[in-house]
Amino acid sequence: MSYNLLKGKRGIIFGALDENSIAWKTAERAHEEGASFVLTNAPVALRMGTINTLAEKTNSEVIPADATKVEDLENLIEKSQEILGGKIDFVLHSIGMSINVRKGKHYTDQNYDWTHKGLDVSAMSFHKLMQTLHKKDAMNEWGSIVALTYMAAQRVFPDYNDMADNKAYLESIARSFGYFFGKEKKVRVNTISQSPTPTSAGQGVKGFTGFMNYAEKMSPLGNATALECADYTLTLFSDLTKKVTLQNLFHDGGFSNMGVSQEIMEAMEE
Amino acid sequence: MSYNLLKGKRGIIFGALDENSIAWKTAERAHEEGASFVLTNAPVALRMGTINTLAEKTNSEVIPADATKVEDLENLIEKSQEILGGKIDFVLHSIGMSINVRKGKHYTDQNYDWTHKGLDVSAMSFHKLMQTLHKKDAMNEWGSIVALTYMAAQRVFPDYNDMADNKAYLESIARSFGYFFGKEKKVRVNTISQSPTPTSAGQGVKGFTGFMNYAEKMSPLGNATALECADYTLTLFSDLTKKVTLQNLFHDGGFSNMGVSQEIMEAMEE
Amino acid sequence: MSYNLLKGKRGIIFGALDENSIAWKTAERAHEEGASFVLTNAPVALRMGTINTLAEKTNSEVIPADATKVEDLENLIEKSQEILGGKIDFVLHSIGMSINVRKGKHYTDQNYDWTHKGLDVSAMSFHKLMQTLHKKDAMNEWGSIVALTYMAAQRVFPDYNDMADNKAYLESIARSFGYFFGKEKKVRVNTISQSPTPTSAGQGVKGFTGFMNYAEKMSPLGNATALECADYTLTLFSDLTKKVTLQNLFHDGGFSNMGVSQEIMEAMEE
Amino acid sequence: MSYNLLKGKRGIIFGALDENSIAWKTAERAHEEGASFVLTNAPVALRMGTINTLAEKTNSEVIPADATKVEDLENLIEKSQEILGGKIDFVLHSIGMSINVRKGKHYTDQNYDWTHKGLDVSAMSFHKLMQTLHKKDAMNEWGSIVALTYMAAQRVFPDYNDMADNKAYLESIARSFGYFFGKEKKVRVNTISQSPTPTSAGQGVKGFTGFMNYAEKMSPLGNATALECADYTLTLFSDLTKKVTLQNLFHDGGFSNMGVSQEIMEAMEE
Repeated sequence: MSYNLLKGKRGIIFGALDENSIAWKTAERAHEEGASFVLTNAPVALRMGTINTLAEKTNSEVIPADATKVEDLENLIEKSQEILGGKIDFVLHSIGMSINVRKGKHYTDQNYDWTHKGLDVSAMSFHKLMQTLHKKDAMNEWGSIVALTYMAAQRVFPDYNDMADNKAYLESIARSFGYFFGKEKKVRVNTISQSPTPTSAGQGVKGFTGFMNYAEKMSPLGNATALECADYTLTLFSDLTKKVTLQNLFHDGGFSNMGVSQEIMEAMEE
Repeated sequence: MSYNLLKGKRGIIFGALDENSIAWKTAERAHEEGASFVLTNAPVALRMGTINTLAEKTNSEVIPADATKVEDLENLIEKSQEILGGKIDFVLHSIGMSINVRKGKHYTDQNYDWTHKGLDVSAMSFHKLMQTLHKKDAMNEWGSIVALTYMAAQRVFPDYNDMADNKAYLESIARSFGYFFGKEKKVRVNTISQSPTPTSAGQGVKGFTGFMNYAEKMSPLGNATALECADYTLTLFSDLTKKVTLQNLFHDGGFSNMGVSQEIMEAMEE
Repeated sequence: MSYNLLKGKRGIIFGALDENSIAWKTAERAHEEGASFVLTNAPVALRMGTINTLAEKTNSEVIPADATKVEDLENLIEKSQEILGGKIDFVLHSIGMSINVRKGKHYTDQNYDWTHKGLDVSAMSFHKLMQTLHKKDAMNEWGSIVALTYMAAQRVFPDYNDMADNKAYLESIARSFGYFFGKEKKVRVNTISQSPTPTSAGQGVKGFTGFMNYAEKMSPLGNATALECADYTLTLFSDLTKKVTLQNLFHDGGFSNMGVSQEIMEAMEE
Repeated sequence: MSYNLLKGKRGIIFGALDENSIAWKTAERAHEEGASFVLTNAPVALRMGTINTLAEKTNSEVIPADATKVEDLENLIEKSQEILGGKIDFVLHSIGMSINVRKGKHYTDQNYDWTHKGLDVSAMSFHKLMQTLHKKDAMNEWGSIVALTYMAAQRVFPDYNDMADNKAYLESIARSFGYFFGKEKKVRVNTISQSPTPTSAGQGVKGFTGFMNYAEKMSPLGNATALECADYTLTLFSDLTKKVTLQNLFHDGGFSNMGVSQEIMEAMEE
């Protein structure tokens, strides 16, 4: 299935680790829809993953970049424009990592060096990315920037730990930078707040499977998959959503506006 | 420009009065994208408007229906399925009217018969429409229902009068009914909260032009046009947004997340 | 315990049916805090309840009023000022009723006459009350008006039926009218969104006890009681919250900002 | 005026720099309402300010603490309990600072070392404070923790710079930590989102006076003052709001729920 929705558009896609990644699915679908793009990830993630398979499949190049390092982002953006032959139309930021989560530190017992590092990777990287794009005037008018986020930015999910605060910071950056990027360059900036998704990253969170089931039962349309998220992301990269900006968009089968579902009530009664 | 985004889909479009209407633009664009649909409006609106021009252009039939009358909606939905040859994939509700506004009654001096009537037309009609679709099992799985709304449902715009409360009620219906429609029929229900738009309806609101200018200055990407709203609506009718439901989606150049813009600050200083 | 928080203040309290009512508790506490007030309820409710006990205990008079009838509200407001000896400082609107709920009609099978009637009683009565207060210039400067609401106005609680939409409409009225009442008379208008509370009204909702347990498990501080809600309401009537207006204030032990709690996750796993 | 609202309660108040500070007013009012408390601020701020005047007036001791240093917080919390004679009932966090703002760096041209430092002072300090209180089990049951914030966490105010993102992070911490503090210790945690206030900190923001005027014109009750914010804060420290937690509470004369006011529309037309 292809609509040629992104025909002729040039992009940069962060965070395609393996075929479970939302970024991976987005790359596959963007390719089908006629886009050309550069894939990027942190050098350490590149070694772990199988991104070359994706690169071949989508006829893309891979440029390593540590998204916390401005010089890496500068190199990425320069090279991407050379490779793609012009300014950038769309960017996907799909990066998140909490050392406190990985090391099993409870939210009430944080190691603050790790908290800072996780924030830098998960959220401040988004500012660095946009600041570099903005300084280099690397985005085309009516270009679109999307970051993936999670509803823990608005409500408490106890096991999400400091990633909740990182996502709140990320979403705020989308609004704050989106204003200037919109006003000066007509570029839109949004975040997609996706259902819990069984990616390699998601699965690292404690009690993830139980939570997936809960969210499935709570959402009238069920959890959204990585592929569905890719499809939705494409609409935000397309020319059909030019005036959507500064928004945090829930893509979650309706979870975000549920108070309780019949299925949860029934499960509670058992 | 066409992506065949709605190829083979069948719909019902309410509220195309004249070529300024968002519903009119949506019909034109849905036609270009491969959809077939029925146009409908209240009998009195049909007499005032030029809907036959649109019907010819989009190869559609027009079925009059007063959206406050369940029997009219039943007839509309039955006939639409006959004409289109199957169940419905998408519905646009673009209906709003306040007698208090028309008659110049201030919000603090309402005529409550008019308030009830305006609510019935502007908001309860949306429930009646969905209840009728639901009872008749007239929607295809993964169908999409959209109603147009305005941000006065969340924040105060003094001249918007009782339409603010009507829109709050409408948006609540979208969530409440969307839950059951999603759970039982896999149908999604959303509202689009659009920039002030110079339609015939919008222009009836006092101080509309001044407000348009304010919103333009406040929005980093400027106000969204009727055509842009049509494009956005199409994405919600398409198969690319299957897990988006119960949402109120701002399509407004960023206005909804602005506190103040530099242009407004400068205008205030003059 | 008394702080004299409302010393010398005059009020009108709607909706004290029996000692489980939030309005009943508010009357008791307002009396302890030094306020004088008039109690009111619909004639039919007065016959069912035991309000005279409350009136004696709080040294108050009872004035019957059907809150859907402007002439009743006019009489109430005139008499209240005579009895209390001056303009009004605070008003509590605690009124809600859905015939569809009472008669067991599902949300997808509404009787619209009942829907209109429930809206009139539960929500439009709030507009009528404020319009009458406003026209009669019956509120003192820095007076405070509070209506009780429920989070079903924002999120789906399937059994809450059309009361969800009524509460959304009510909250919108608080904002819309609150703007004019604030600007012109320095009166603040807010809604309190309270935990599920085992009042006579609340208990009429299907599956109420199960839902109470769910909310208790979801809320870090547990459900808020009627008495606690009364205390909170007093703070909004006091001089300590003069600049709080147009707000919907959650009084719910934290429920409203929870995504999931550990207790719910554990209950789901069993 | 005193209600003895905080009689017998013990607290810690951060951020009283001079008599314009909200924290200063809160200390004065808390003293009037019967509380005893410790005042604290960063050593450098203590040198600049006149906190000893406040300490004498409120019969309080001053303990210097850099809120970014856990060892300083540990010392503060231990000493406070010794001085006050028991566990803590209330804490006010009123700390914020952006080096990017001070040094005139635009939001699209951040120095990221400064961004990290500002975040540490303005937001992560709130986590460190609560983590230290939690580990030391220093809060009484039904104690109350409040942090001051600003609506730039939700919406764009272009001159607010990276403080917007810091406040979003702060508000997220309130929810995330508030869950555990509530569940385990029955302590409530909230943020107050206050009108722009002419404190020494606020006045450092570019275009502050113009913005104050804008907010005044937009708010139906006008901007809230520092003294009014102190009064509101007291209600959250009192026993009358025991079930309010995880909330971000707007104290702003209604600004937060305004779309546009008549005065702004008129000012725009001039």
